[in-house]
Amino acid sequence: MREASRVFLDACRSRPVPWTPVWFMRQAGRSLPEYRALRKEGSILEVVRRPELAAEITLQPVRRYGVDAAILYSDIVVPVAAIGFGVDVVPGVGPVVEERFDSPADLERLRPLEPDEDLPWVAETVRILVGELDVPLIGFAGAPFTVASYLVEGRPSRDYLRTKALMHSDPRTWRALLDRLASIAVASLRSQVAAGAAAVQVFDSWAGALDPDDYRRFVLPATARVLGEIGDTGVPRILFGVGTGELLGAFAEAGADVVGVDWRVPLDLARRRVGPGPALQGNLDPAVCVAGWEPTAAKARAVLADVAGAPGHVFNLGHGVAPETDPAVLERLVELVHEETAGGAQA
Amino acid sequence: MREASRVFLDACRSRPVPWTPVWFMRQAGRSLPEYRALRKEGSILEVVRRPELAAEITLQPVRRYGVDAAILYSDIVVPVAAIGFGVDVVPGVGPVVEERFDSPADLERLRPLEPDEDLPWVAETVRILVGELDVPLIGFAGAPFTVASYLVEGRPSRDYLRTKALMHSDPRTWRALLDRLASIAVASLRSQVAAGAAAVQVFDSWAGALDPDDYRRFVLPATARVLGEIGDTGVPRILFGVGTGELLGAFAEAGADVVGVDWRVPLDLARRRVGPGPALQGNLDPAVCVAGWEPTAAKARAVLADVAGAPGHVFNLGHGVAPETDPAVLERLVELVHEETAGGAQA
Repeated sequence: MREASRVFLDACRSRPVPWTPVWFMRQAGRSLPEYRALRKEGSILEVVRRPELAAEITLQPVRRYGVDAAILYSDIVVPVAAIGFGVDVVPGVGPVVEERFDSPADLERLRPLEPDEDLPWVAETVRILVGELDVPLIGFAGAPFTVASYLVEGRPSRDYLRTKALMHSDPRTWRALLDRLASIAVASLRSQVAAGAAAVQVFDSWAGALDPDDYRRFVLPATARVLGEIGDTGVPRILFGVGTGELLGAFAEAGADVVGVDWRVPLDLARRRVGPGPALQGNLDPAVCVAGWEPTAAKARAVLADVAGAPGHVFNLGHGVAPETDPAVLERLVELVHEETAGGAQA
Repeated sequence: MREASRVFLDACRSRPVPWTPVWFMRQAGRSLPEYRALRKEGSILEVVRRPELAAEITLQPVRRYGVDAAILYSDIVVPVAAIGFGVDVVPGVGPVVEERFDSPADLERLRPLEPDEDLPWVAETVRILVGELDVPLIGFAGAPFTVASYLVEGRPSRDYLRTKALMHSDPRTWRALLDRLASIAVASLRSQVAAGAAAVQVFDSWAGALDPDDYRRFVLPATARVLGEIGDTGVPRILFGVGTGELLGAFAEAGADVVGVDWRVPLDLARRRVGPGPALQGNLDPAVCVAGWEPTAAKARAVLADVAGAPGHVFNLGHGVAPETDPAVLERLVELVHEETAGGAQA
C-alpha cells in the first residue's frame, strides 16, 4: 500500500490525516454504466461465486471515483445462503427466503460457517483485490439483528412485526438465533481479514426500527460479541445502520471504532451522542446526489462544517448510493471533499 | 359531551386530568373483525363517500376499546382525490397516483378545495359522529410534505428520491406545490372543525426522511401555515410523523399543541427536545402489541414511567395499529393505562 492509502485507516483511528477520506456505501453497483455492462442479469449470489468478476466490480468505483477505500462486492446474506438456509437476492426486491425462520427447530438450519469450505470464493476475491488495490479493502458482514430480520420476515419489511414478535414472545429462541448469526458473522469477517481486508463494516441496517431499550436488551449483546471477537485482528470496525439516531451511543458501547451516521443526525450532534472515542462516518443524504451537483456540493460543505475539522471523520453518504445517481456527481464529490480538507485540516 | 369526555382535550392542553387519555392511530380498520365484516373489498375512497358507513367504522373502535377519542375514518389523500388529481388507495399498497406530479404545469391540477362541493360527505360524516359520540372526534389532514411525497413519487416510497430531487432542484415549484397542499389541508380541516371535530391531527408521516436542515427550509413553513391558519378555531392541533426524532423541536416550532412521538424516542427525551410547551402523544411500538399482552403491558408501563405523571400526555402507539393486532390486547391496554393513571396522577 502506498503511504496515501493509510488515510482511510488513520481516520478510522481518529489520527491526523492529510485529507478527509471518502468512500460510498454501494459505490459498486447499478449507478455505474461499467457495472451494468458487466453484470447483466442474475442474482448477486451467483456473481460473488466468481472471484475475478466480483473483484472487477469492486474495483470499478475505485478507478472511476478515486475513493480512499474499496468495499468488497457482496451481500449480507451471502454467509447464510452459503450454509444452505435457502435465500436468494431478488433484483429490485432484496433478500427473499424460501422458508422463513419460524420456530426453535429452525435453529438447526443455521450451522456454523466454515469459510474455507462454504465460501472459499470470498477469500479468493479478497486476495485478488489486495493484489490490485492501492487503497484499503473493507470487508463486511450483516449484524445479527439485520440478518435475522430477513430470515424471520422472509423478505424486506417496513415494520418488522414477525421479528419483534419473536424477540418479545420467545426471547430464548431469539437470543439463540442471534448467537448463531453472530458466530457466522465472526467466522466470515475473520476469513476476510485473514485474506487481506484492512477494515470491516458491520451492517445493522435496520436496527433503527427498534426502540433504544429493546436494542440494548435484545440486540446489542450479539453485535458487541461480533465486534469483540474480531478485535484481536486489529482492523478498524465500522458499525452502521439507518435511522439509528437514538442508538448512536449504544453503537459506541458495542465496540465500534467508527460509528456510521445517516443524514438525519447532524454530525456535531452525532458526536455528542457517540462520545469522544469512536470516529464518525457519513452522512450526506444519498437522495441529494440524485438531485444534482449544486445541492450535493452545498450539502457536502454542510457535512464538513458540522465536523469542523475535528479528527475522526470518514466522509460517506448516509446510506447506499441510489441506482439513479449520476456517477459524475460522485466523482466531483470526491474531489470536493479532498480539496476542501486538503492540507490536513484535521491534523 | 359528558364531563369525562373532556379528558382527551384537557390532556392536549396540558391541563390536569383524572386519567391519561388513550386512543390509537388506525384504531378503526383491519385489525377489527367487525370492520372486516362491514368493509368488504373496494377502495377507502369509496367508503368515505358513504357517511353512514364511514361513521359506523369510526365508531367501532370507540365501542370496543373505550378509547378517549375517536378519529374520523378517512385517508390523507381524500382531498386531492376529491379535486380530481387522480389518485386511488390500493389495499395492501397505499396511495397510487395515475399521473405523477412532475413539472410546474402540474400545479394546475391542484386547484383550491371547496369542501361543501368537493367532499360534502366528509362534513356529513362528522355531523353524524358528533351526534353519536360521547368522546371528542379528531379530524385530520395530511401535512403538505407527506401528501406531496405521494403525488411526486406516484406511490409509497422508501427513499423519496423524486420528492427530494424536486425540492432541491426546483425549490420554486416545490414551494408552490406545498403552498397549494397547505391551502387544501386548511380548507379540509376548517370544514371538519366547523362540522364538529373537536381536535385535529396533521399527519406528516414521512417527514422523518428529511434531515433537520431540509425540514426547516423546505417543509416547516408550509406546515406552520396549516397549523397557524386553523389556530383561530381553538381546537388542539396534533402534529405527527414517524422517525422524526431530530425534528421534534421543529414540530413544536411549527405550532403544534401536541407533538406525536414514535417509539424510537423515549418520552422523557422527547420532552427535552420539544420543550415545555406542547403536550406529547405516544409512543408504544405497535409491533409490540402484535407480540402479545405481556410485552405490551411491560412496554406500556415503561412509556408511563418515562412520562412520570407529568401533565400533557396522550397515550397512543408510536404509529398505526398493525392489521395483525389482536383487538383483545388493545382492549386490555386501554384498561391498563386508565387504571395505572387513575386518580389524576397528572393532576
